[in-house]
Amino acid sequence: MRISDVEIHEFDYEVERTGTVGGNWVYDPDSTLEPPGFVLTIRTADGTEGHYRGFAFTPPSIAQVQMVAEEHLLGRDPLARRGIWQDCWRALRHTDHFGLGAIDVALWDLAGNHHDASVSTLLGGYRDTLPTYASTMFVDDNGGLDGPEAFADYAERCLDRGYDGFKFHGHPEVRPEVDIAICEALADRVGSEMDLMIDSSSLYRTYADALKVGQALDDLDFFWYEDPMHDGGVSERTTKKLVAALDTPMLGLEHVRTGPYGAVDSLASESTDLVRASAHMDGGITGALKTAEAAEAFGVDVELLLGGPAHMHLMSALRNSSYFEHGLLNPESDWILNQGFEGRPESIDDDGRMAVPDGPGLGVDIDWEFVDRRRTGHTVIE
Amino acid sequence: MRISDVEIHEFDYEVERTGTVGGNWVYDPDSTLEPPGFVLTIRTADGTEGHYRGFAFTPPSIAQVQMVAEEHLLGRDPLARRGIWQDCWRALRHTDHFGLGAIDVALWDLAGNHHDASVSTLLGGYRDTLPTYASTMFVDDNGGLDGPEAFADYAERCLDRGYDGFKFHGHPEVRPEVDIAICEALADRVGSEMDLMIDSSSLYRTYADALKVGQALDDLDFFWYEDPMHDGGVSERTTKKLVAALDTPMLGLEHVRTGPYGAVDSLASESTDLVRASAHMDGGITGALKTAEAAEAFGVDVELLLGGPAHMHLMSALRNSSYFEHGLLNPESDWILNQGFEGRPESIDDDGRMAVPDGPGLGVDIDWEFVDRRRTGHTVIE
Repeated sequence: MRISDVEIHEFDYEVERTGTVGGNWVYDPDSTLEPPGFVLTIRTADGTEGHYRGFAFTPPSIAQVQMVAEEHLLGRDPLARRGIWQDCWRALRHTDHFGLGAIDVALWDLAGNHHDASVSTLLGGYRDTLPTYASTMFVDDNGGLDGPEAFADYAERCLDRGYDGFKFHGHPEVRPEVDIAICEALADRVGSEMDLMIDSSSLYRTYADALKVGQALDDLDFFWYEDPMHDGGVSERTTKKLVAALDTPMLGLEHVRTGPYGAVDSLASESTDLVRASAHMDGGITGALKTAEAAEAFGVDVELLLGGPAHMHLMSALRNSSYFEHGLLNPESDWILNQGFEGRPESIDDDGRMAVPDGPGLGVDIDWEFVDRRRTGHTVIE
Repeated sequence: MRISDVEIHEFDYEVERTGTVGGNWVYDPDSTLEPPGFVLTIRTADGTEGHYRGFAFTPPSIAQVQMVAEEHLLGRDPLARRGIWQDCWRALRHTDHFGLGAIDVALWDLAGNHHDASVSTLLGGYRDTLPTYASTMFVDDNGGLDGPEAFADYAERCLDRGYDGFKFHGHPEVRPEVDIAICEALADRVGSEMDLMIDSSSLYRTYADALKVGQALDDLDFFWYEDPMHDGGVSERTTKKLVAALDTPMLGLEHVRTGPYGAVDSLASESTDLVRASAHMDGGITGALKTAEAAEAFGVDVELLLGGPAHMHLMSALRNSSYFEHGLLNPESDWILNQGFEGRPESIDDDGRMAVPDGPGLGVDIDWEFVDRRRTGHTVIE
């Protein structure tokens, strides 16, 4: 079985009632975003296919797929994923490796289709359903999630809906005091019943601000403190100091594109408490699994970033992972990241749990009618 | 003065007598590559302009410029570079930050045009000419640089041409024994008169191979040993072991997209002897300067990766940098990276020295006739 062609469908999708402040997604009743997405299909001569549906960083991901498709995909055995992974990791060595994420996930889907088994089963997965947390958009000034009361109200709704945890993204105009006030309101309203997290999304410009917010979280028994520092959380020294200074576990590495190799450095230097990984951004399921396995060996939990079916299957195989991230939500949002799939694979039951798809491969079908209707580009490499 | 529009011209250029093996450039008399390049122009309402000519990683760079142009460039004071830099670093936090390189270099060019001063002068630069080394393509099997004798012959020509140093890229099919034989031939032929370097370009798949080549370099008094490991040189632990085991200075970080924040971690952990930086890939002149300043403070040299006028100006301001990299060359190559500029800014004199342009900004003019003739795309954001 050899890869005969690589096909890319680009499309855009709709995020209603959402705008941006400094590039950060916020509730905005008068705005609809139309971000680009894509479907990568890897196909063999006998017609076996694997699909990847991408929803973020579409142009750079596609550019990287195109950089390696001819040299490292065409003619290769698609089941020999690890060889392809190593070649593409090296070929994309100057980049953030986004393209490898798409390629590897599509190869896992293809393998599942070939073996008539789910990716979870191929991974030896053992969890059928996953606990989830509600992950909101950034703080807005548009009457949505616009302050402590609004967040506390929404968290209560999320608790009623079944979520076990609640996370918000800070004020996009960098207002640590607003972020702290929201944390206090959340802890007061739902802190005894939900795990609470803040994703500061690298907004804070000084260590002083990052420390101040962290100290507030310590008093409020937050579940984790995610990416406070403006450098993206790159500096091991900075995060190591925060880890030492704070009781609240730090979740780091979402913005550090060094894959398993860099993650291990952060683990060895004890510069994060929890490790962020993403099949989309960290070399696919193969890459994120390397990171997760290393983290398990270090006794550290790995928390996957958003990410749909690829992450459902991956997380089903992991012991050391607490939550599937469901977002980005606001009180008037419909869940957006099902777009491009048939049905609604990212849905939770009344207990806030998400079912891992059990069909072959990723267990989801591309909604080709949707993709064709909103198509913005099409490329075939063969 | 406010930024009124951002314009991108995409084009392709020609690299004659060059093919690829596993994506690596090699001499090939029967092949011409046509890689994509681009010109980014940042313009103010009063018509002041800055240009950046990109020659590598064009699609992801353009994608990232488009991600931030509206939110973080339009309407901003183009001279307030450091504010734009911080905003874009954070906005592109998930990515490799390629787009920030293009933006920042264009802003430096614009500032130079505004002040009627060269970028070197704005930086306080003090070197008018720069020592260079010849940097070859990868080992080929096509009768070009195809083995020890061919490399030794070519190094001798480069010595006669005036270059003070000579670097080659290893065998793209991963043959450490071939690489060692070439090193031996080079040391034997020109080692007493040139600084010799090998760029293993993350080809070696095992630590064992990386160590073996390094031990050979120790015996041959090589000037540096660049990026042996397949992980891209990401793992600080791996490179730290090589640094400790070898006498030859290790040059690392070309493939680690963590900017000054990650570079300092590697410096603090003594996991590299020399630091690679690039205005193109590490956040522009502003980003690479942060890395270079930190390296100087650590007593470590910074060696800039290829890179044309941006690097001439930057290097003119640095004490702790040995060489401008001139490449990628083979015995039949004309210098390729002048394409898109008027004249031949990357040229060496009989002593192998390259003159830093002294006109305003980057001191080079875009060859618009060339760009228009080979144009493949055009975007205006305003």
